[in-house]
Amino acid sequence: MREVPDFPRPGVVFRDLTPVLADPDALRAVVDALQDKIDPDTQVVAAVESRGFLLGAALGYGWRYGVVPLRKPGKLPAVSHRVSYALEYGEATLELPEGAVQPGQRVVVVDDVLATGGTAAAACSLVEAAGGVVTGVSVVLEIPALGGRELLAGRDVSALLAV
Amino acid sequence: MREVPDFPRPGVVFRDLTPVLADPDALRAVVDALQDKIDPDTQVVAAVESRGFLLGAALGYGWRYGVVPLRKPGKLPAVSHRVSYALEYGEATLELPEGAVQPGQRVVVVDDVLATGGTAAAACSLVEAAGGVVTGVSVVLEIPALGGRELLAGRDVSALLAV
Repeated sequence: MREVPDFPRPGVVFRDLTPVLADPDALRAVVDALQDKIDPDTQVVAAVESRGFLLGAALGYGWRYGVVPLRKPGKLPAVSHRVSYALEYGEATLELPEGAVQPGQRVVVVDDVLATGGTAAAACSLVEAAGGVVTGVSVVLEIPALGGRELLAGRDVSALLAV
Repeated sequence: MREVPDFPRPGVVFRDLTPVLADPDALRAVVDALQDKIDPDTQVVAAVESRGFLLGAALGYGWRYGVVPLRKPGKLPAVSHRVSYALEYGEATLELPEGAVQPGQRVVVVDDVLATGGTAAAACSLVEAAGGVVTGVSVVLEIPALGGRELLAGRDVSALLAV
């Protein structure tokens, strides 16, 4: 990973996964390490736009999950549920596509980074609103100082790295 | 695929890949069909934000390509090159991450849909600006009436479906 100071705003050090993605062996190692911590009864990956798409789709292809993109507003042609929430740098909305999560399906939420937990909590609530069962939240990088695990209390949260 | 009328604007029929992604076998079939048409010397998938991320990352994991996300403006912490271009519904900008494409690397551009070709042409120009060699443009769905292949004349364009 590459550290980029002062992005997206002064004082924040951004951890950039671009070099990991660009290396086929590193990509495989990271995705397989995520897989190692996912509940074995999981059927679907809910991938958070946009960097979660990259990890979630690789997981889905490699380990035979369905992939459901959780998208920013206005992108999905048919929306099942929508949730707005606070995040580290402002406010955001996520939408779940219509018909993508079936009642009772077991779903893991995948994203690159767990910061305040706002995005992951919103993703979990979308899955549950559609009747899905959240088996866990899986990320590459956790920033424990931002308290994401507290917001996700009771969830099975796994991270490959904490900084 | 699901057809959604009048999205993103009246008169346009949107072809929605969501049901394909949500089915693990369909996802695998589509990604492997893309792979069948990719130049065998290709090393890197340049995936166009955001739906191209889903296909490109699955391809990268499954077939051992490096994955380079081509992103909308303001998302990348370190930008190598940037290009603005016209698209079907307005104007857009794509950015290439710093250090992600090495000179001489053989790169396929992957997206969900080929419409006017503006996005794909911009993606090719970004790869070439970094010294990469574009081996082709690979999409799931082509809309031939919009003339994308003319804009990409001389490129090896492959699509699984045309509507």
